[in-house]
Amino acid sequence: MKKIINQPEEILNQMLEGLTYAYDGLIERVEGTDVIVRKDRQEGKVGLVSGGGSGHEPSHAGFVGKGMLSAAVCGEVFTSPTPDQVFEGIKAADTGAGVLLIIKNYSGDVMNFEMAKEMAEMEDITVETIIVDDDIAVEDSTYTAGRRGVAGTVLVHKILGAYADQGKTLQEVKEMADKLVPNIKTIGVALTGATVPAVGKPGFVLEDDEIEFGVGIHGEPGYRKEKLQPSKELALELVEKLKAEFKWAKGESYGILVNGLGSTPLMEELVFMNDVKELVEKEGLVIEFKKVGDLMTSLDMVGLSLTMIKLEEEWKAQLEYPVTTVAW
Amino acid sequence: MKKIINQPEEILNQMLEGLTYAYDGLIERVEGTDVIVRKDRQEGKVGLVSGGGSGHEPSHAGFVGKGMLSAAVCGEVFTSPTPDQVFEGIKAADTGAGVLLIIKNYSGDVMNFEMAKEMAEMEDITVETIIVDDDIAVEDSTYTAGRRGVAGTVLVHKILGAYADQGKTLQEVKEMADKLVPNIKTIGVALTGATVPAVGKPGFVLEDDEIEFGVGIHGEPGYRKEKLQPSKELALELVEKLKAEFKWAKGESYGILVNGLGSTPLMEELVFMNDVKELVEKEGLVIEFKKVGDLMTSLDMVGLSLTMIKLEEEWKAQLEYPVTTVAW
Repeated sequence: MKKIINQPEEILNQMLEGLTYAYDGLIERVEGTDVIVRKDRQEGKVGLVSGGGSGHEPSHAGFVGKGMLSAAVCGEVFTSPTPDQVFEGIKAADTGAGVLLIIKNYSGDVMNFEMAKEMAEMEDITVETIIVDDDIAVEDSTYTAGRRGVAGTVLVHKILGAYADQGKTLQEVKEMADKLVPNIKTIGVALTGATVPAVGKPGFVLEDDEIEFGVGIHGEPGYRKEKLQPSKELALELVEKLKAEFKWAKGESYGILVNGLGSTPLMEELVFMNDVKELVEKEGLVIEFKKVGDLMTSLDMVGLSLTMIKLEEEWKAQLEYPVTTVAW
Repeated sequence: MKKIINQPEEILNQMLEGLTYAYDGLIERVEGTDVIVRKDRQEGKVGLVSGGGSGHEPSHAGFVGKGMLSAAVCGEVFTSPTPDQVFEGIKAADTGAGVLLIIKNYSGDVMNFEMAKEMAEMEDITVETIIVDDDIAVEDSTYTAGRRGVAGTVLVHKILGAYADQGKTLQEVKEMADKLVPNIKTIGVALTGATVPAVGKPGFVLEDDEIEFGVGIHGEPGYRKEKLQPSKELALELVEKLKAEFKWAKGESYGILVNGLGSTPLMEELVFMNDVKELVEKEGLVIEFKKVGDLMTSLDMVGLSLTMIKLEEEWKAQLEYPVTTVAW
């Protein structure tokens, strides 16, 4: 294992200290917790809280700020935050209008966020939840019943964040969330496994010329191993999978997010984006939002995921809505 | 070699197509060239042009936009752009107030940018140049006489970009550049080599437990190999090197950029930032600008560099000046 760390058991704390030091004009750590909160909370607006295990940076703390999340709750590497930490996040995010929890669909996250919701309700904070399950690769998985929540979650942060910033009520934000999530789908491909620092070796190993489609962001098994393919072939596989899910028609409006999994050079993500472009143009889709970068990573995994969102008119503006975050 | 590409000889073209597709609201490719230019050029302002070999994404095209670069000239991977391409960049950037070329100090870049300057002057475009040589690791190197230009170049883009956007003359921007560059210094550490796609294997190889200080962004040799150290020790080595160069005194004002070299997880960059924080606090420096991320990469190299800038009052505001770019 070759990592720039100190004691593996101190990574979470040291990472959060580094993050809040680097961006101390924007975010801060709630004292005694692993909660990152925006400094400029606005009274009376719905609070958005997300989080989960660490190792997916910049998710989620990098998306805390005006127009996106109010707070992020950061668990140990690939480990759900505890209910009391999530509760701290809720308290930090609530300014009187209630809080929506944006939860990636992992059993541990769902359980702990739900428990935190109950704790908050006992203190008269109104809390709603939305579970993001955008990964179409597999049904049920190592840590999940149903589908996993992956990079599409960041688009949920973005759209709901704009909505909340515009002063919508908790009920309105929750209704938007319910409508939004089924319209976001993601599928990925891994070229290498990810190494959890405390473990010291990759969670799974691929041969030198092998890739795996549909691997999860904690290294959960995908749906097929194959020899390494050119980018065009990878794009074709992923776009075909998304097409089968969306059952899109020519002329429909979509957005695209190409997301690097941590150790993928941006150059390659851009080459891949160009291949996706050619395919969606051939399909006759109208692409009205595009983004490329490392938004939801899996430590040092090499690979990428492709997220598509079927766009409603209103969501386009929300995706372009200005934000003040570390990483959008 | 495990890369998400198609034909290695088509990487530059396909990457630029992917980039301009993804961010078509912001930037475009000058037809028939490898020049990326901002869409909203403002008449009468000084044009800033940078560039160099590709493989350092998001540098430099990711910094084209309002408040930073007017154009970026993109060479093949680790290969200087030709003089005629740089000339195209100058023409695209000039709106009547002249153009400053920001050149990383590599012999090929310096030669080709200087030739392009002469070509432009024959067409009555006023051109000035600034050579960035921020890498303190070694004097002279594989492709360089003197010191190499690396991640600090992005801070030059940022500060001069703000200055140009504020309507300064070419002479004023050039004077600021001359004052600025000696105040920016960088030093890095590599955990792995980088693989040029057309070559297919890493440019140099480190043992499983080995690192190298001072490696260049094309894999040029550094100044010492060692066993892998904890992040704190790496930070100490790099900060001590910078201290010996700056000869700083307690109470002086500095900025910090922690830059990932391509395949380094953000988590580790943040842990490292925390270690740098402890050291500069001990030194009694006043740190008034901080940034962490992958700004000047070396393909899939694992490692990072630390840039420090001795801040003049005016430069702080320019570092915070709002920009509209893909990657700042």
